[in-house]
Formats: sequence, C-alpha cells, structure tokens
Amino acid sequence: MDTAKTTFPDPKMGEPFLLTPGPLTTALSVKEAMLRDWGSWDGDFRAMTKSLCDQLLALAGDVQGDYACVPMQGSGSFAVESMIGTLVPREAKALVLANGAYGLRAAETLRVMGRAVSVIDKGDYLPPCGDEVARALDADPAITHVVAIHCETSSGILNPIPEIAEAVRSRGRKLLIDSMSAFGAIDLDVTRIPCDAIVSSANKCIEGVPGFGFVIARMDALEAAKGNAHSLSLDAHAQWAAMVKTGQWRFTPPTHVVAAFLEALRLHAAEGGVAGRGARYARNRDVMVAGMRGLGFETLLRDRWLSPIIVTFFTPAHPNFAFPRFYDLMKAKGFIIYPGKLTVVDSFRIGCIGRMDETIMRRVVAAAKESLAEMGVDDATPPAAALAERNRLAD
Amino acid sequence: MDTAKTTFPDPKMGEPFLLTPGPLTTALSVKEAMLRDWGSWDGDFRAMTKSLCDQLLALAGDVQGDYACVPMQGSGSFAVESMIGTLVPREAKALVLANGAYGLRAAETLRVMGRAVSVIDKGDYLPPCGDEVARALDADPAITHVVAIHCETSSGILNPIPEIAEAVRSRGRKLLIDSMSAFGAIDLDVTRIPCDAIVSSANKCIEGVPGFGFVIARMDALEAAKGNAHSLSLDAHAQWAAMVKTGQWRFTPPTHVVAAFLEALRLHAAEGGVAGRGARYARNRDVMVAGMRGLGFETLLRDRWLSPIIVTFFTPAHPNFAFPRFYDLMKAKGFIIYPGKLTVVDSFRIGCIGRMDETIMRRVVAAAKESLAEMGVDDATPPAAALAERNRLAD
Repeated sequence: MDTAKTTFPDPKMGEPFLLTPGPLTTALSVKEAMLRDWGSWDGDFRAMTKSLCDQLLALAGDVQGDYACVPMQGSGSFAVESMIGTLVPREAKALVLANGAYGLRAAETLRVMGRAVSVIDKGDYLPPCGDEVARALDADPAITHVVAIHCETSSGILNPIPEIAEAVRSRGRKLLIDSMSAFGAIDLDVTRIPCDAIVSSANKCIEGVPGFGFVIARMDALEAAKGNAHSLSLDAHAQWAAMVKTGQWRFTPPTHVVAAFLEALRLHAAEGGVAGRGARYARNRDVMVAGMRGLGFETLLRDRWLSPIIVTFFTPAHPNFAFPRFYDLMKAKGFIIYPGKLTVVDSFRIGCIGRMDETIMRRVVAAAKESLAEMGVDDATPPAAALAERNRLAD
Repeated sequence: MDTAKTTFPDPKMGEPFLLTPGPLTTALSVKEAMLRDWGSWDGDFRAMTKSLCDQLLALAGDVQGDYACVPMQGSGSFAVESMIGTLVPREAKALVLANGAYGLRAAETLRVMGRAVSVIDKGDYLPPCGDEVARALDADPAITHVVAIHCETSSGILNPIPEIAEAVRSRGRKLLIDSMSAFGAIDLDVTRIPCDAIVSSANKCIEGVPGFGFVIARMDALEAAKGNAHSLSLDAHAQWAAMVKTGQWRFTPPTHVVAAFLEALRLHAAEGGVAGRGARYARNRDVMVAGMRGLGFETLLRDRWLSPIIVTFFTPAHPNFAFPRFYDLMKAKGFIIYPGKLTVVDSFRIGCIGRMDETIMRRVVAAAKESLAEMGVDDATPPAAALAERNRLAD
C-alpha cells in the first residue's frame, strides 16, 4: 500500500466535496481498490467477505460468537427493511420511535410488509426519551419489538440510545437500532447497549462507497427468524445461513464496493477506530457550526442534540436568499451541500462526515460567506418565528 | 476519453479472467470511471441517471414513451423480485417457466411474497416451448402472468422467447421476461416481443460492475401497479414515480457503479451494440466449445440450445479428475471458471461474456489441456450414462 495515497485530505482531482449524509467524499485509495474484478465464488473473495464481517463484529464490541454480521446488497434502506422484515415475526407488533423521515420510513416499511406497528412521533426537534418509551410499552403489551433511530439525519439529531435501550430491556422487549449514519463514529457497543440487532451501511461513517449495508444481529435472534421474511432477496436469515454454509453471499455481491469497503476499514482503524473517527467529525461540526453562526445562520437543534454527522440550518429570512442559488454558488466553489428534509420549516443541511477535516470545513464557511455576498444577503439570521418555535419546543 | 484505455483486451494487472456468469471481467476504463464520488441529489448525477435510462430504452427497441426504465439497487435477483412483486398483483396468479435454478428462484420469490404460482419445470436439458405454454394457459384461466427466463445460466440454455411470447399474447396473458444474462448481447426488442416487462442487470452483457439491475416495463403496467409491491425498497412503481418527479433514485444509488455502467454503455455502443456484442460472445463460445471438445469434454446441451453466454460441461469420467483441483489449476493459469448448478449430473461451467475475445478463449483451452495433464487425465470424456441421458432427452 502506497501511504502517499492515504494522506489526508486526498487529492480531489477538481471534484467537489460532498457535504451530505452519503454518498460522501471517500479517500482516493478507497476508490482505487475498485480497479480490479473479483469472482464472487472464488476463495479470495470469500476471505474478503469473512474479513469484512469479522472487522464489523469487532467494531460492535468484539461480539463474535454471540452476534453475526449479515451484509445485504442495496442501499441502507434495503438493509433496514431486511433487519425489520427478518427479525420482527409476522404476528409481532413493533413500536417505532420517530423524529424525522427515517423513523417514519421504518414505520412505512413495517406497514407495507403487513406488520402491526405503532409510532411515537416526536416531530423534528426532540428525541424520544426512555421514560416515554417505557410508558408506551407498559400501555401496550402487544408490542414485541422497538425500532429506534440512532442519528436521525433529517434533522441531524442524536437520539439517546442508552436510555431507550434500558427502557426496552427493563420491559422485556426487543430493540432494533437503525445506526445507519452513526455506526463507526459514535460508540455502539452491543455488550453495553442491549439490542437484538443494529444496521448500518458501507457508505456512512466507515467511508466506503454505496452499494451494501449490514445487519449485526444476535445469533439466537437470527436462528429464530427462519421464515419470517416477506422477501426472498431481503431475507437476512437466508443470507446468513448461506454465508455460514458456503462463505458466499447468497446472490451476486457488489464485489468492487466490498473491496473498497475493506480499504475504508483499514483507514478507519488507522485513524483510531470509532473514537478517532468520531473526534474528527466532532471537530468538523464544531468548526463549521461556529463559522456558520458567525454569518448569522442558526441550527435547527439546540447544541445538546447536535450530532457530529450532519447539521440542519434554518433557511435565512433575508428576501434575497434562495436555496437553489445558494446550492449552485456553493457547488461552483467546490462544495455540494444538501437540501432540507423537514415538513414544517425551511432548512438545509451540511454534513460533517466523509474524507474531510476542519481545514476543509473552514473553506466551507468561507465559501458560504462569499456565496451570501454574491446573493446580496448581508445577514443569514432565520425568521424570528422559526427560532421562537425551536426555543419553545426544545428543552 | 483516452482510447488507449479501451483497447481490447485490456491490460489485466495480473488478475485472473472471470469465466463466469458475473461478476465478470470488465474493461479498465469501466473501473476507472469509479475513481470519483458523486452526490446523488446533484444535477450532474441526475443527468447520469437519465442518460442510463434513455440508453437502455433505446437498446430495448427505442421504446421511450411506451416503456419506462426503472433501475433498482442490489443484485439481479433483487431486480427480478422487484419486477415480479410490483407487476404481479396480490390476487393474481403467475405461471413460471423453469429449466434451472433461476426459474425455480422466480417461483420461490412468488411463494415468499404470497402470490399464487404454478410451474412448468423442464429439468436441465430442454426449453419450455410455445405449444406447452399455450396448453397450460388454456387449462388454467386463473393464470394472469407468465414469467420466462431468457437464458437460464444454470445450464446455459437459450430459451425460445419469441414463440413463448406469442403463446402468451395469443391467450391474452401478460409476460415478464428475466433477461438477466442475455440483454445487451441477444436481441430483445419489446416492439417485436410482446411483454409487460423485462429485467436485467448492470453486470452481465453490458459489462458493468455489479450493484444494480433494471426493469424495463410498459408505462401502463407500471401505472397500474401502485400498491402491489410487498416491499418498500423493491417497489418498482414507487422508484419510477420518484424518478419521474425528482430525477433521483428513491434511496441512495450505488453512484460509482452507475458511473461505471455509463462507460460500459459507451463501450457497448462502440462495439456495435447488441449485434456486435453478441457476435463476439458467439465467437468466444464457438472457439471455446470446439477446443474443449477436442480435449474430450462434452456439453450438457445439444448445439441448438447452446447460448453465447455460458456453457455447461459434463464432469469427465476419468477417476483422476476432481473439480476443486481443476479449478485451482485453472486459476493458477489466470482463469476462474465456475462450478455447476445442476441437481442431477456433475458439471461445471465456462462463461463466454465479459471483456474477453477468442484469443483469450484459446488460452482457456490451452490452460484446460495443461491442467488435465497435471491431473493425469488423458481423456475428458463424460460418463457414458450421462451422455446417453442427454441424448435420450434432448431432441
């Protein structure tokens, strides 16, 4: 391995940085790992799959033997559907803790597959807390499973998984965690957070390229899940059983994406694993949020709920501000930002993840300052009503 | 574009050729197209998605306006499940025409999603014919849809799609074609082959890398399919509706794989499209089969059913022949071959698709000859009983 290729930040060949929740900017060496074709049946590739699973189980708390890692082709939502469809039996009932698009999508996934579901919907600003989860479980003994979102990227909120997990455990129910945008940068050790499964993807905090996700599930939960799934392709039990028997993915894997992910895991370990990765993202957030506030922008969330993954900003009140033009001006300066995904207030998002550090984030803030000037916006303060609503709702 | 990078065959950097039905050997320029990150929300990537869909509709018979192209994340089987689960209504009944693993998998897919299904199973040697399809449809008026496999890669058989399509059309039923391993190399013009949809993948005859498939479906069939799907992720109607509205994939696309596919489409056009690609594969097959027969090997199928995609050979009768050793010897010489997928007789397979031409196929035959010598096998003739059975069944 040429270490010059993994210096940080990488040469970018003129392409814009992706300040999004994924697809994100990846290291050049990650992409270079895709310059080779692999036979998916061959022993060399089977060894790659095994290494991938072993490393992910180590990241989840060294849980080989108790948990299994099941990679699943497709986007993150495919992996979430695979986890839920496989581990929630057909006659079971799930409680989804929602505070944004991804929680609501998990509920919709359950409805489409015909599972009973109830939802705690906290809107955009607030996390579901342990107490209210406990009350909901006490009130409805039919609920067998709880689905929680670790970091809800609609708003960027970091949900309090430890107290949610404790509430679920104390009521004897099972917890499934969508840690799509958090795993790899925010600690999620399943030996300390009791849960039946977590799910994440290649293309988030491990900084691989998109093409597959993975479910890390209790072995006994997987064993009991045979025949639950509503789908042949998304059956995590069948995928796992095939891998145990043959070492292969059940259907054609995205071989190049897998090769890229192994290089991404190498860079993740070299950076100091979850702690090192999370520290860089937190610095990215802190530098970027402080700089944006200096221009008048304000965050949707109070500081205590800001994740180091992605930050939502209110759209400024200034009449000259128009998001499509701001997007284009930022892109022309080499930065692709992300539109909002809220239903109530106008917003946009800037991601903190991917192969970028605080020097890049300072350039992002400088580009935002220039873009505002080009639009004739001298103050990026949000509408007073939006701020007041936030302050009223958030504690 | 540096044309030196698309010379044929490409420099291989020492890696083995993949003589498999996919993942397969791709051009270096296809893989180099993955050396960049794309934002999936951005206009540049939306234009790439549109170009991909437009080019695929052109390949299917210039059917823009009447048909829509719906890319779907995951392996080919995910796309097949998406096509079937979206276009076969929940109360409908499907007839699956099976002569190998992929037909049986389509039937299993329908069963898992709770659809009524019947199967014509022709075993390994024979294709389903128009007459028997017509008889089956006459005998069961409940059947609304027929699922046919274009090239069944279990055996390599090329099924007679035109006569099957005519039988289905004449009985007023709907046809769904799994053209996974054929589309792009064998003509499938939906203006001449009446069908509601076809499905294929990035990683077959167009010679992209694995990570998504695509459904090409009649627009009116898609419009009528809202709410049919058993799965949120695999709902081709919802994916299509989102693309029409936003130009984006509904969930994160495998952006690098999409970029690679566009380069693969460029090479496909440069080679003369379906006709040029198919002609090269046919030469690959002819050179390889003639050479292997010269060593005593014999094909599972009679010549009339041999596809230019993949060829199944009987395992030789010689007591010194062992497939795992043959595989390793071939791999050491730079060629990865493929195990058999038949239930009755021992076999193995050699693919004809991917970035390879007849000069490579001559080297494959030479490697097989050397490998036999190293195993102490002086004659690769199959067991007499296996040949007799083939000759008894095949017409």
